[in-house]
Amino acid sequence: VFNRLCIIGVGLIGGSIARAARIKGLCQQIVAYGQQQNLANLQLAQELGVIDQFYTDISEAIKECDVVIIATPVGTMQTIFEQLKPYWNQQTIYSDAGSTKGSVVTALEAVFGAVPTNFVLAHPIAGAERSGVAAANPQLFENRRLIITPLADTEANALNAVSNFWQQLGSSVSQMSVEHHDTVLAATSHLPHILAFALVGLLGRKDEQWEIFKYAAGGFKDFSRIASSDPTMWQDICLANKQEIIPLIQQYQDELSKIQQLLASDQGAALFETFTYARNARQRFLDQQED
Amino acid sequence: VFNRLCIIGVGLIGGSIARAARIKGLCQQIVAYGQQQNLANLQLAQELGVIDQFYTDISEAIKECDVVIIATPVGTMQTIFEQLKPYWNQQTIYSDAGSTKGSVVTALEAVFGAVPTNFVLAHPIAGAERSGVAAANPQLFENRRLIITPLADTEANALNAVSNFWQQLGSSVSQMSVEHHDTVLAATSHLPHILAFALVGLLGRKDEQWEIFKYAAGGFKDFSRIASSDPTMWQDICLANKQEIIPLIQQYQDELSKIQQLLASDQGAALFETFTYARNARQRFLDQQED
Repeated sequence: VFNRLCIIGVGLIGGSIARAARIKGLCQQIVAYGQQQNLANLQLAQELGVIDQFYTDISEAIKECDVVIIATPVGTMQTIFEQLKPYWNQQTIYSDAGSTKGSVVTALEAVFGAVPTNFVLAHPIAGAERSGVAAANPQLFENRRLIITPLADTEANALNAVSNFWQQLGSSVSQMSVEHHDTVLAATSHLPHILAFALVGLLGRKDEQWEIFKYAAGGFKDFSRIASSDPTMWQDICLANKQEIIPLIQQYQDELSKIQQLLASDQGAALFETFTYARNARQRFLDQQED
Repeated sequence: VFNRLCIIGVGLIGGSIARAARIKGLCQQIVAYGQQQNLANLQLAQELGVIDQFYTDISEAIKECDVVIIATPVGTMQTIFEQLKPYWNQQTIYSDAGSTKGSVVTALEAVFGAVPTNFVLAHPIAGAERSGVAAANPQLFENRRLIITPLADTEANALNAVSNFWQQLGSSVSQMSVEHHDTVLAATSHLPHILAFALVGLLGRKDEQWEIFKYAAGGFKDFSRIASSDPTMWQDICLANKQEIIPLIQQYQDELSKIQQLLASDQGAALFETFTYARNARQRFLDQQED
């Protein structure tokens, strides 16, 4: 149990961490830091009881905290690290919830020269198409995976504390390298989000003539749900992990071109094989989920 | 109420029509036609009580039927029409459940010279990633849309009977032209299915090195669900509507290339706009659903 947890960025993820930590009794006190321009959101977080108190002065917010968790869009993290640097406390555990990890390492290195040994890079694989503290949900991390990407010199006690914290929130904690994380997540999360944004954008422009959305069925609804995700967060993620994402988009384009060619040349049997391969791959995926 | 309904193709859709029609009391007797090679499926349909009787002789199956509904993959319809032709009865109402309509018109014209006036082209916008009669569900069509694409000389009594039938099954019935149907469905159903097959296929090939599926979260699961759809059915749909689908794939590729370029040149503001446009389009879609 921590005495005092500071959340930097009380949106969907930061707010859900706070709510879950409170319900599980993991912290005596939960505070938040945010900028003056986010005052309304901070006040809402306090009114909703998500946090006990908020500060627009970062040095006040983190004072006497055991743990500081940064849950802002990954593009803002370097600025946050610069603000934290003058007050850095080697006894405090710092962690984040960023969807890309290489970019967080780069930002920490830019500010501190090297990643501080008491900073634990973490990523809860959970989210929702809603954003903001009003959508915070204490069950958000239950039965979800959380990936920690430790570095060679990450302090063991900090690593264990963060790992235990997330296990208490209901997550299944895994460890992998920063690079592997960014490769896997580009495929499993970043690319699908881009595909959904691209599809709904394309159809949105056609909709006035075509009434497409009126006749959209279940498959499309599922497919398009993630196109409602927070644009700021996704702008940041896509730019932060573009080295992984750009080649994946290319490979996906190649895949689509192949299907396009099979259609153009009426190659039914090859289409059938392509679709069957995908169907079987998804079945492997489902079987794995049940393990 | 019909005396005798014949379903040709008792899979997910045909079986669900039969189950729903029985529960709603719309038919005295429900029979099915299928090929000898599908005997096991026909027997299962009878054992499950989905149909009263089945025939592997089409002339026996349709004898004294008020209504014949063809629910086979669209690629098989021309063969079915050839089998039906010698026994064509102007007093019977014929309809289908094909996901493409232009191809059904073409097949009817090839066999009959012109689309018979007692054939009502219909498409229930409902489905599931499961297939086969065991997955048949009498609620499948409830609160779903059904599109009828009448031709200039479609008989009014046949049109009304089919429309009423589907309304009784719980569907909201609309009418549009064959061409408009195929344009809209290419965008709202056919393209999304191809995107899902392409994504799951691509990731399936990478999965062994990457453990991608292990770390896939909700967005991916939603997105990939339709990749479990029946490959035979989708091979047929894609080929039948390729004139609409191929240019849409091209437009989608252009959309992805734009995003790829924005990433490569770090154009955060333009990415934000792209994602925001999609998010707003989806919100319009959701608002429309609630109307």
